[in-house]
Amino acid sequence: MAKKSQQEFVQHITPRDEDFSQWYTDVVRLADLMDYTPVRGCMAIKPYGYGIWELIQKEMDAAFKRTGHQNVSMPMLIPESLLLKEADHVEGFAPEVAWVTQGGTEPLTERLAIRPTSETIFCTMYAKWVQSWRDLPLLYNQWCSVMRWEKTTRPFLRTSEFLWQEGHTVHATAEEAQEETMRMLEVYRDFCENVLAVPVYCGQKSEKEKFAGAQATYSVEAMMQDGKALQSGTSHNFGTNFTEPFEVKFLDKDGAQKYAYETSWGTSTRFIGALIMTHGDERGLKLPPKVAPVQVVVVPVAAHKEGVLEGAKAVADRLTEAGLRVKLDDRDNVTPGWKFNEWELKGVPLRLEIGPRDLENRQAMCVRRDTFEKTPVPLDEIVESVKATLCAIQKNLYEIARAFRDARTKDVFTMEELEEQVNGGYARAMWCGERACEDEIKERFGATSRNMPFDQTPIAETCVCCSKPAKKLIYFAKAY
Amino acid sequence: MAKKSQQEFVQHITPRDEDFSQWYTDVVRLADLMDYTPVRGCMAIKPYGYGIWELIQKEMDAAFKRTGHQNVSMPMLIPESLLLKEADHVEGFAPEVAWVTQGGTEPLTERLAIRPTSETIFCTMYAKWVQSWRDLPLLYNQWCSVMRWEKTTRPFLRTSEFLWQEGHTVHATAEEAQEETMRMLEVYRDFCENVLAVPVYCGQKSEKEKFAGAQATYSVEAMMQDGKALQSGTSHNFGTNFTEPFEVKFLDKDGAQKYAYETSWGTSTRFIGALIMTHGDERGLKLPPKVAPVQVVVVPVAAHKEGVLEGAKAVADRLTEAGLRVKLDDRDNVTPGWKFNEWELKGVPLRLEIGPRDLENRQAMCVRRDTFEKTPVPLDEIVESVKATLCAIQKNLYEIARAFRDARTKDVFTMEELEEQVNGGYARAMWCGERACEDEIKERFGATSRNMPFDQTPIAETCVCCSKPAKKLIYFAKAY
Repeated sequence: MAKKSQQEFVQHITPRDEDFSQWYTDVVRLADLMDYTPVRGCMAIKPYGYGIWELIQKEMDAAFKRTGHQNVSMPMLIPESLLLKEADHVEGFAPEVAWVTQGGTEPLTERLAIRPTSETIFCTMYAKWVQSWRDLPLLYNQWCSVMRWEKTTRPFLRTSEFLWQEGHTVHATAEEAQEETMRMLEVYRDFCENVLAVPVYCGQKSEKEKFAGAQATYSVEAMMQDGKALQSGTSHNFGTNFTEPFEVKFLDKDGAQKYAYETSWGTSTRFIGALIMTHGDERGLKLPPKVAPVQVVVVPVAAHKEGVLEGAKAVADRLTEAGLRVKLDDRDNVTPGWKFNEWELKGVPLRLEIGPRDLENRQAMCVRRDTFEKTPVPLDEIVESVKATLCAIQKNLYEIARAFRDARTKDVFTMEELEEQVNGGYARAMWCGERACEDEIKERFGATSRNMPFDQTPIAETCVCCSKPAKKLIYFAKAY
Repeated sequence: MAKKSQQEFVQHITPRDEDFSQWYTDVVRLADLMDYTPVRGCMAIKPYGYGIWELIQKEMDAAFKRTGHQNVSMPMLIPESLLLKEADHVEGFAPEVAWVTQGGTEPLTERLAIRPTSETIFCTMYAKWVQSWRDLPLLYNQWCSVMRWEKTTRPFLRTSEFLWQEGHTVHATAEEAQEETMRMLEVYRDFCENVLAVPVYCGQKSEKEKFAGAQATYSVEAMMQDGKALQSGTSHNFGTNFTEPFEVKFLDKDGAQKYAYETSWGTSTRFIGALIMTHGDERGLKLPPKVAPVQVVVVPVAAHKEGVLEGAKAVADRLTEAGLRVKLDDRDNVTPGWKFNEWELKGVPLRLEIGPRDLENRQAMCVRRDTFEKTPVPLDEIVESVKATLCAIQKNLYEIARAFRDARTKDVFTMEELEEQVNGGYARAMWCGERACEDEIKERFGATSRNMPFDQTPIAETCVCCSKPAKKLIYFAKAY
């Protein structure tokens, strides 16, 4: 039965190298992260998927608070007139807005957008809340959902409604706004690398790829196992682009009325997509311990034998008391083999098998999800050992992803090299800075510029595309 | 300056007995809990107000998890056809739904409701997720916002959009569903009384007042300081009212296909309104320590004198390290008197004043927000003393509210007594069970039935209204 179960699971997951996209869909579905709903492009996030999101929220919210931010809640509806105030912004977002036109039985005199993002409503309120330099900075964030009417959707990667956080801040000077923009980019980098174990490239977006209405957009870009880029977080400096039309003004120390400088930054449930496509394998999900809803699963083997269930429960209890997230799988209607496969599919970092002989030997068999390494661990040392192994798994997942990413990133100097490289990786190239070259690369190879790293040491003198003098070092890749 | 500031604050708050409603609005605004927005009936919840909500969420979410519930996320949009499936439900909610009719540039073929509540979408998904008795129960909750197109709105009490949690569960038997309904009512009671320090009456709603589509609705009802009722949480047993039209069926142990039994239960940012109107006074908000974003404010007095600021900071740091939520108010542009008033207005439970003489005497002056009692506390004992005082404040706030509530609740036997009693309190009366009597009481006195307590020991034999034989003991009150 154990063997049969194993096959049953495995045969449902399409191999990664056969069809990566189908592999992703299979894992999402079989790991029970979400389900499709009758609402176009909107997901139901199931407990296991939401559990990952709760851990992401908890870690990230703490990082926001450490950096002086506070949470607020703004209305989900935005009157059309507010959206229209910043020209680039409305042009960027209008095509994908869901409009409320009727409230109860009465048609509305003005359409209301379900927020696609909240710069306009934040600036409307900031205009009321900011009077003097003493009111600045305002460092606010909200956790909510936003709606963008997407034509083609994929679970966690691109959905019409998605959960996210959006930080919106206003400052007295351009310098402070730029510092904030960089600070939050660094919060995102640190979070991706040290919590999600997802290495990222940090840098500035091109004019073409920046946020609608921003002066400058910075991003953290991850690489999935098919070599495609996943933009995982963005941090925007708006300068006074919004604060001028929205009249967010303050009386400065020098007695002059000035416009405030604004930033915003956001990340979303896309992170869950990043986790799956960075770490997953043929057996399913592989979760970094820091965001695993279950860090350790304890599976009794030959549970009908005397003392086994009690022994397994005692171990689970000790680990739970030590602050770990533990699941004792004491189901009696599936075999241990079935359980092993199911928890591997769900990406649980560590499995402890406890059978009669283990109990005799005062040990548990400890199996790592990342390496499948199997080690007997004395019960006396179980808490320390499990904690150390979880740390090792967290580190190993990052290192594997980092090595993969680095191996799949290459400097390119010709269009031929670029074409080959973006077929499964990032191309680092020199660029003239003109949109025409980005457009050509997009059209010919389906790749887009990702971002310009902060270290701009040139690797060549001419643009990879047009051969004119190069101005910028930049990454190109196909992207989600 | 201190005196002037004090007056400035005080003169902005309308006295409670002059105009309770205006007092409420003043406190909400001056304590900086929220602001009005250009979106009809929708609030911006500011950091201090949202900080209270975060603490409410944290405590309540832990209670949900302790009772075996898991969080999920469902779409915010619900197709009209789903809303139409349960007749009473759509009749109850259709008049207050905000409708999305356009997505991007295309008109929708079917209108989408912004969820007013999510029974219909949960049941749609449960129909997919429930196959066998082994899948039951499903005990899910979500934290989100909902939209009800209200005609008249008041901050935190009745707004078009509000933040809430909604639990939705399905069970194999009617008994289990009823147990769950009662379990969550008890979670709400415990939370109101032991976290918010708000005493509540628990009981069953009348047929007239029950939730649209429910078989039975239970509520926790609080009493505000104007004697009016605030329904603070509801727990519904739906039986199979929704699971039948939505076909939530399962194969039971006996091999038969059966409909699952469903419950739902919800509470909202209304809790913040309950806190204000239960505990507040002429100086503003008065927060129970368990949900106070700032539990202790440390105010240096004569902060320019050597060592004062450092001394105050050292105390604040020690309290923070001890796990308390502490604010050191080291602003140099307002006087200590101004600060005292501001933090009283914001309802901070405890204030520590630290001046040069206090430091000489190795003490801090400790001032309680609930009693204004002023006690010197030796710095050596400050952590234990502050913790003990916060416990005492939590307890005292509950006891005061409880005594007020009990004093304003009376048994009534005639319509004259009822009329007098609902002018500032709860009337406990016998009732024939007929809607006509509820309608008459509503029409004549503006009072509604609140709920029927579980202890149904009769206090008379005939209905307070029609004098026919009484069937139920029930509370009447004017309500928010």
